[in-house]
Amino acid sequence: MQLKGLDYEQHPVNLRQGEQREKAYRRLNPQGLVPFLVDGEVQVGQSVAIMEYLDETYPAHPLMPSAPEERARVRQIVNMIACDIHPLNNLRVLNYLGEHLRAGKEQEAAWYHHWIDETFSALEQLLMTTAGIYCVGNEVTLADCMLVPQVYNARRYDMSLEDYPTINRIVANCEQLQAFIKAAPANQPDAQP
Amino acid sequence: MQLKGLDYEQHPVNLRQGEQREKAYRRLNPQGLVPFLVDGEVQVGQSVAIMEYLDETYPAHPLMPSAPEERARVRQIVNMIACDIHPLNNLRVLNYLGEHLRAGKEQEAAWYHHWIDETFSALEQLLMTTAGIYCVGNEVTLADCMLVPQVYNARRYDMSLEDYPTINRIVANCEQLQAFIKAAPANQPDAQP
Repeated sequence: MQLKGLDYEQHPVNLRQGEQREKAYRRLNPQGLVPFLVDGEVQVGQSVAIMEYLDETYPAHPLMPSAPEERARVRQIVNMIACDIHPLNNLRVLNYLGEHLRAGKEQEAAWYHHWIDETFSALEQLLMTTAGIYCVGNEVTLADCMLVPQVYNARRYDMSLEDYPTINRIVANCEQLQAFIKAAPANQPDAQP
Repeated sequence: MQLKGLDYEQHPVNLRQGEQREKAYRRLNPQGLVPFLVDGEVQVGQSVAIMEYLDETYPAHPLMPSAPEERARVRQIVNMIACDIHPLNNLRVLNYLGEHLRAGKEQEAAWYHHWIDETFSALEQLLMTTAGIYCVGNEVTLADCMLVPQVYNARRYDMSLEDYPTINRIVANCEQLQAFIKAAPANQPDAQP
């Protein structure tokens, strides 16, 4: 929304306190996951569905290329992260590993790093053929909107990213943009010191 | 592709024998996952990216509605399955649970059922407000293309689906269509008896 210049009102949901599972929130989103978008009469869950909806509905500052094969490439990258990394490393899954499979902190970290490495190894190769300043060419796309928070998560789990120079370069480029700075976790109203 | 009336040539990749991890396949798709689409010069990985590419590139028999909020609803359902069920229950993850977290067959089945139940409970509620004959209204969309194989997987793991009457009704409707019959696992050239 920062990239597209859209105004919005933010309602934080405290995941550590389990607010996403409370009735009030589940009435809005039965899945009990964040984020969730309310745009007038339209209500949308799932990050990728929200991003595609915003980009289609508010065409200024497009975040998808126009050529079919570039669109496919953006969506491939989006889904590599949205399907094959993020849901595996989500809080609810880490909780399940500890509660039902007795995974300790070291096993949790190994799990977390493993799924990032699996996908980042392939993504690094792919980006070497598609990237310009950003993931696909020289314009910011939805692929960059997925990559930046995933790299943030990797850093949060003290992961070495030295094998991924292209990923690092793209993320460094994104992090110079005001939109990404404003959207960074530390700059949110509910950020904890 | 059956629904859109597109001709294609199928190259089976034997997952149980690990063909997806072999060099020959990884040269095509560094991620080592299926499916992968080659359409002339265009190469696309990730199921959702492939489906969106085909629907945009070959507009006959559209699998996305035209209204923005219905498109968002289809993509929400697609991603509920593509992100929050399928990657968790994928073969590589089940292998990891056994190899690194010593999960036995019962724990594997409990894991498998858990993530389907988590999402199907929410999906059942959502579909009660969006479904007609199919997931969103009375036309087949990408949401149905995701739901049918996911229900197939649930059955394969002997899961009870009696709590999901709307899901069952939609899948029964889809399974009457020739396109879904032709795409069923048992009807593929590499199906095992």
